Amino acid sequence: MEKDKSTDEIGFGTKNYATNSRYINNDGSVNVRRKGRKFWQNFDGYHALITMPRTKFLILVILGFLLINLLFASLYYWIGIDHFGNVQTSTPFNDFMQLFFFSAQTLTTVGYGHIFPKGNIAGALATVEAALGLMGFALATGILYARFSRPRSFLMYSRNVLISPYKTLKGLMFRITNPKQNELIEAEAQVILSMIDWESGKRVFIPLDLELRKISFLALTWTIVHPIHSESPLFGFSLEDYEKNDVEIMVFIKSINDTYEQTVHSRHSYTYKDLIMDAKFEPILPRINRKGKMELNVDEINDFQKVEK
Amino acid sequence: MEKDKSTDEIGFGTKNYATNSRYINNDGSVNVRRKGRKFWQNFDGYHALITMPRTKFLILVILGFLLINLLFASLYYWIGIDHFGNVQTSTPFNDFMQLFFFSAQTLTTVGYGHIFPKGNIAGALATVEAALGLMGFALATGILYARFSRPRSFLMYSRNVLISPYKTLKGLMFRITNPKQNELIEAEAQVILSMIDWESGKRVFIPLDLELRKISFLALTWTIVHPIHSESPLFGFSLEDYEKNDVEIMVFIKSINDTYEQTVHSRHSYTYKDLIMDAKFEPILPRINRKGKMELNVDEINDFQKVEK
Amino acid sequence: MEKDKSTDEIGFGTKNYATNSRYINNDGSVNVRRKGRKFWQNFDGYHALITMPRTKFLILVILGFLLINLLFASLYYWIGIDHFGNVQTSTPFNDFMQLFFFSAQTLTTVGYGHIFPKGNIAGALATVEAALGLMGFALATGILYARFSRPRSFLMYSRNVLISPYKTLKGLMFRITNPKQNELIEAEAQVILSMIDWESGKRVFIPLDLELRKISFLALTWTIVHPIHSESPLFGFSLEDYEKNDVEIMVFIKSINDTYEQTVHSRHSYTYKDLIMDAKFEPILPRINRKGKMELNVDEINDFQKVEK
Amino acid sequence: MEKDKSTDEIGFGTKNYATNSRYINNDGSVNVRRKGRKFWQNFDGYHALITMPRTKFLILVILGFLLINLLFASLYYWIGIDHFGNVQTSTPFNDFMQLFFFSAQTLTTVGYGHIFPKGNIAGALATVEAALGLMGFALATGILYARFSRPRSFLMYSRNVLISPYKTLKGLMFRITNPKQNELIEAEAQVILSMIDWESGKRVFIPLDLELRKISFLALTWTIVHPIHSESPLFGFSLEDYEKNDVEIMVFIKSINDTYEQTVHSRHSYTYKDLIMDAKFEPILPRINRKGKMELNVDEINDFQKVEK
Repeated sequence: MEKDKSTDEIGFGTKNYATNSRYINNDGSVNVRRKGRKFWQNFDGYHALITMPRTKFLILVILGFLLINLLFASLYYWIGIDHFGNVQTSTPFNDFMQLFFFSAQTLTTVGYGHIFPKGNIAGALATVEAALGLMGFALATGILYARFSRPRSFLMYSRNVLISPYKTLKGLMFRITNPKQNELIEAEAQVILSMIDWESGKRVFIPLDLELRKISFLALTWTIVHPIHSESPLFGFSLEDYEKNDVEIMVFIKSINDTYEQTVHSRHSYTYKDLIMDAKFEPILPRINRKGKMELNVDEINDFQKVEK
Repeated sequence: MEKDKSTDEIGFGTKNYATNSRYINNDGSVNVRRKGRKFWQNFDGYHALITMPRTKFLILVILGFLLINLLFASLYYWIGIDHFGNVQTSTPFNDFMQLFFFSAQTLTTVGYGHIFPKGNIAGALATVEAALGLMGFALATGILYARFSRPRSFLMYSRNVLISPYKTLKGLMFRITNPKQNELIEAEAQVILSMIDWESGKRVFIPLDLELRKISFLALTWTIVHPIHSESPLFGFSLEDYEKNDVEIMVFIKSINDTYEQTVHSRHSYTYKDLIMDAKFEPILPRINRKGKMELNVDEINDFQKVEK
Repeated sequence: MEKDKSTDEIGFGTKNYATNSRYINNDGSVNVRRKGRKFWQNFDGYHALITMPRTKFLILVILGFLLINLLFASLYYWIGIDHFGNVQTSTPFNDFMQLFFFSAQTLTTVGYGHIFPKGNIAGALATVEAALGLMGFALATGILYARFSRPRSFLMYSRNVLISPYKTLKGLMFRITNPKQNELIEAEAQVILSMIDWESGKRVFIPLDLELRKISFLALTWTIVHPIHSESPLFGFSLEDYEKNDVEIMVFIKSINDTYEQTVHSRHSYTYKDLIMDAKFEPILPRINRKGKMELNVDEINDFQKVEK
Repeated sequence: MEKDKSTDEIGFGTKNYATNSRYINNDGSVNVRRKGRKFWQNFDGYHALITMPRTKFLILVILGFLLINLLFASLYYWIGIDHFGNVQTSTPFNDFMQLFFFSAQTLTTVGYGHIFPKGNIAGALATVEAALGLMGFALATGILYARFSRPRSFLMYSRNVLISPYKTLKGLMFRITNPKQNELIEAEAQVILSMIDWESGKRVFIPLDLELRKISFLALTWTIVHPIHSESPLFGFSLEDYEKNDVEIMVFIKSINDTYEQTVHSRHSYTYKDLIMDAKFEPILPRINRKGKMELNVDEINDFQKVEK
């Protein structure tokens, strides 16, 4: 990508607003909600089912299972319990419950058969329910599995972004690490500065130069450094300047998870509140354990110390 | 790709025809049908099952299910109802229906067992049907799931393509946005002009220069601009020229859907009928809602206003 | 890739042999068989199951199903038919068959239940078989589905490779097309010449320059052209030279199938026997059908005519 | 990637340690263990299930199956055996076992039905178990299939790395081959030298220049060569120097498996113990078998001979 320092480069089309709202939340989610005239325009069922919280998904599956059972139990009850063999009729509630459990045994294809459909209407309904159950459970478990196996990047970002001494200059720095036991390879970083340009009254978006944009292997940690040279838009900024210009540092990391051989993306965002002036990260020294394996304490990623100006 | 302005670059091989037929339909589908001497040469079963309309697919699955059931029911009826235990024989139709439902219960592996195969022939047939049912339902639900989860790009394109003032020149512009709640990243555009060159009487295909070919993040909207500089094949064109040359503007967008971490492609095509001279898009201002989230109205993507020449 | 004209570039490591064996077969398969001291070194079960011919795969699945059934039927018979409820004992063969079908009904999880396990040994065996059946059928149908949905490129290559007039020179040309109704995008070609260099007595491998290496869209056909300029290793070759040097033209095409959004690779190889001197391809003109759709006859890809020298 | 010879390039963040621990094990696994304050920070269930050894996975699945069965059998026993139809009560142990097998038949959805739930409590429990069984088996077989079909690179590396004559210089060389019958295409190598720089007392990481970084097709073998020119960090090294500086040669190979059309990565590492001075690899000559197919003996990849200095 060319280093065209325009707004468009990160896809925030129009340029005429200068709000205080951040663009990317701290957890990496995007602070945008899309609406349109028609509901379905903005709706993507698969995406919703894959990304909704676990408990919401489970409740949805259980409710769906109960509803379909209720529907078929009602149909069975409506055509009459005498269409089913081996049922011992008792109270209406117990009759209904017997049919409800028969329905559940059909939907899950258990089919004990102590109760069974007699005649064509009951037979047809049970056939439809069994086919529907097979398809429905396959879809539900497909989504369950997709949720479980979804390629994700679990990068840890240092809590703070530091302004540290860097060679003869200063550098804006933060650290990332992979806390999981899998390996991330070919990691690539892009850092974009978003701030208000008070001359034009507009919010501007500027990609920041990095000391290193790509590493072949994220085995331990990676300190991502933007050297604040004289060309940098942050050159000479004081902490007040960061606040006054409502600075947001947006981070985009792309890498390959080598368990699934899949590219994964991670986003993060720092605001001026996360900034520490004149500090540097503590080096992280992996210990060698008894088996000769290097041990990395990922929590140390946040550790820094103040430096003399 | 090099900017070789040849026909070949977009794969429309021969150059000697100048038809009025558009190459890409407005919905992004390709206006080409491939035929050959042998039917199977052009047939791809999986592709057909994945892309056919939903209702057609459902009808096919239901028909398939009924046909296999009918086939096995007929076989069971043909070997004789006395090969099945617990059947109460009545009319031939009812006998057949009982075997039909037994077949359905076998195919879905419900297997209530109030009817069951007796003897080796019935046992063998039922075994085959059960194995077939397991395989068939797995294939059908696999395809159902693949249809549901197929990576797709649901980009919205502005209804019109505008000729707007652009810096000191004019620019050909259209806008895209992602109406869904997922995020599209690393979006990349290619725009190809197709028109009749009356000098040679041939249709030519020319990639158009873009102000920006790639953005890292399609959070809001992206206005794709071809600056009509003096090198542009559209330099000095009037609305009549666009019509006379049967201009088609073909758009190819590639991006990554970050829910599934998959690359998705989108196509669109404008003809001279979609062109508005001397107009510019209204800026789209996302509103900040009560939760501090930016709200984007994707329908505003079409809004433009006429400008003084 | 740099145009280093070395053998290594296509992975045929050592250089000291000059056999007549072709490297890539006409159907794109590689003419190499890898062996090692230990069988499992060269064995990849999943690869074998995915790529074996359809009938072989079906026979394997059926045999596997029968064998597991036989095994469990034998175990059931061995512990004794009195461990099963509701069985009507008759001849040993019929007893065995009843247990065989009970086994099949357990493995497929149909479980009619007219025969059922009694006591702990039979119960335990049936439990193991049911669990095994669920796992086994899931694996088998998973592989079946993977075979069915495997991303493949069904490119058609022109039967012949032509030496045609090309601008002021000659060009080595062949044509490709996609016979299927799906779309191939971002197609990229690499052509490698393999021939015997009689000076050194070695076989050499030389990548050939192409007029165009990449097209964005393979909608109709693509004529791939190597201009035989004075730098070309084929400059001045007569038909006899092609034969004498045992020329093989290896073709590698990479593209994206836009139904599954997946990259697919295709290989092809021409030998001097497929070469036609002084001929050019007939242009392929798609017809416009009644619905305004262009129709392409893919068989025309082979049509050429001789030209005056 | 730029050839920035910094530590960061391979993701070993801090630079102040000079341990003897190797970074990558001979089998390609990474010699790092990540820890944090909270267990779940470092835990990735899917990754663990996909990568654990086969036997461990099988034991886990069997244990899980038994435990869920035990749980439900206990619940059934606790509500009372009289909630189940057709049970012949005998000893408490046999009662429990009957319910255990009923539970197994429900969980696997076999559902013979010779025992069946009576009343609402037993019906509800069995319904929950059947639904759980369907979901659980789908997850387990999903993971089983993912383990089986996981894209992997089975590259073979030569046992030794040689210092051989190379043109007018020496070269550091090793060979790779693909022992499997599938094809690896677009193979790309990166070789990184890790050694102790005794001047600074630090471990340094230096990417090595390669004669060829990418080949289009790994049909036979690929000898990867680092020319030890005067700019090379290994220029003039004796075997003692390799040992003294604790040299580790890390190899990263990326390629595409053309059966699954998927990118696969492979890692390997050599230490000074694997180094042979003044030797060269024996050329590997594929034999032509009776069917005209080239046969490659992959074990020959290790064969070398000493050369005169």
